[in-house]
Amino acid sequence: MTELVLTTFDWVPEAPRGFVRDLRVRWALEEAGLPYRVQSVPFGNREAEHFAHQPFGQVPWLTDGELSLFESGAILLHLGSRSDALLPVDPRRRSEAVMWSFAALNSVEMASLPWSLHIFSGDTGDTPAWKRIDAFLNARLKHLEPVLAEREWLAGSFSVADILMADVLRLVDRFDGLNGYPACKAYLLRATGRPAFAKAHADQLSHYAAAD
Amino acid sequence: MTELVLTTFDWVPEAPRGFVRDLRVRWALEEAGLPYRVQSVPFGNREAEHFAHQPFGQVPWLTDGELSLFESGAILLHLGSRSDALLPVDPRRRSEAVMWSFAALNSVEMASLPWSLHIFSGDTGDTPAWKRIDAFLNARLKHLEPVLAEREWLAGSFSVADILMADVLRLVDRFDGLNGYPACKAYLLRATGRPAFAKAHADQLSHYAAAD
Repeated sequence: MTELVLTTFDWVPEAPRGFVRDLRVRWALEEAGLPYRVQSVPFGNREAEHFAHQPFGQVPWLTDGELSLFESGAILLHLGSRSDALLPVDPRRRSEAVMWSFAALNSVEMASLPWSLHIFSGDTGDTPAWKRIDAFLNARLKHLEPVLAEREWLAGSFSVADILMADVLRLVDRFDGLNGYPACKAYLLRATGRPAFAKAHADQLSHYAAAD
Repeated sequence: MTELVLTTFDWVPEAPRGFVRDLRVRWALEEAGLPYRVQSVPFGNREAEHFAHQPFGQVPWLTDGELSLFESGAILLHLGSRSDALLPVDPRRRSEAVMWSFAALNSVEMASLPWSLHIFSGDTGDTPAWKRIDAFLNARLKHLEPVLAEREWLAGSFSVADILMADVLRLVDRFDGLNGYPACKAYLLRATGRPAFAKAHADQLSHYAAAD
C-alpha cells in the first residue's frame, strides 16, 4: 500500500480552528484506521507548488502514491475505495452514500456556506440578501429534518456521507442554526460522538496550536 | 440492462428553461448513447412520491432498476460507471474526473449559485453582500482560468466533470460573468459545441414548450 499524506495549512487564525476541512479527511482516515502522515504548507504565502496540488489555493489535499486529490468529497470517496468502513459494500447502498455525499455538499453546504459567510461578516441585518440566504438554508433543513428523523445514518450504515453532512451541519450549529431542527441536531450529536471524530478534532486543534 | 428513467418537472417558467439540471443528465446520456425515457412530475404541486425520490423537492432524479438517485453529480458518476465515454478508464484519471466533478459543484457552483441568485433578485447594488459574493466568484474564476488555459478537458479526456463544469459556467456566462476569463469562455464554447449538448438542450426546451 502506498503512503497517504494529508496536506493542510501550517497555521490558521483562531476562528476557523476545528472547522478547517482537513478535519473531514482526518475523520475518515481515523474511521478507516488507515495510517497517514500530515504535512503543512504556509497559510500566509501560498506558492506555485500549493496551486499545483490545489488550484484554488485552499486545503486540504491528499496524496496516495502518484495520485494527488483535492476536494474533501473526492478525497473521501477515494478513501472509501480503500476501506469498507467508509462506504457500504452493497452496490445500491454504495451509490446512495455517493448521492448523499453530493447532497451534503451541493444541496446543504451550497446554502450553509454563504449563510455562514454572512454571519462571519456581521451582515445579518434586515437586508434582502440575508433574508434570501436564511430562507434558502431553512428550506434545505426543513426537508432534511424528516429524513434524519427516520434513520440513524444517511445510507444504511455510517459512511463518508455522514462525515460530510455532519461537518456541514457543525458550522450551522455553531451559529445556532439547528435550533428548530431536533432530528438534525440529534444526528449531529450521534456523528460527532464517534471516537474517530474526537481524535480528528483534537488532532486538528493541536496541529494549529503547535504553530502559535 | 435495466431501463434508465429520467424524471424532471412537467413545466417550468421561461427564465430557467435551458438551465434546469435535467440538462446535465440528458447531456451525459446523449454522450454515452445510453437509451432512456423521460417522465414528468408536477412543478406546481409536489407530492409525497416526489419527496421520496428527491427529499428537497427538486429535479432531476434518475432510476436505474431498483436504484433511484438524485443530485446531478451522483447521477453522472453513476452513468460513468455504465459508460467509458463519461469517465476515463485509467484509475488515476478517473479519480481526477471525480475530483473535478466535486470542484465544479463545490468550489465553483458554491460561489456562482448565490451570485446568480443575487442577479435573479436584482440585488447587485452597492451592498457588502453583493461585493462579497462577486469577489468570491471572481476568486474562483481567476484560479480556474490558468487551469483551463493549459488543457482541453479537465481530466485528460472529456468526462462528466466537463459536463458539470461547463453547465455551471453557462449560468455565469448568461450574466456576462466570464468576460474577463477568455480560457473559461473558450472551454465553455468547446463543451457546448458538442452534438450531445445541442441535443440535450433542444430536448429540454421542447419538453417544457410542449406543456405550455
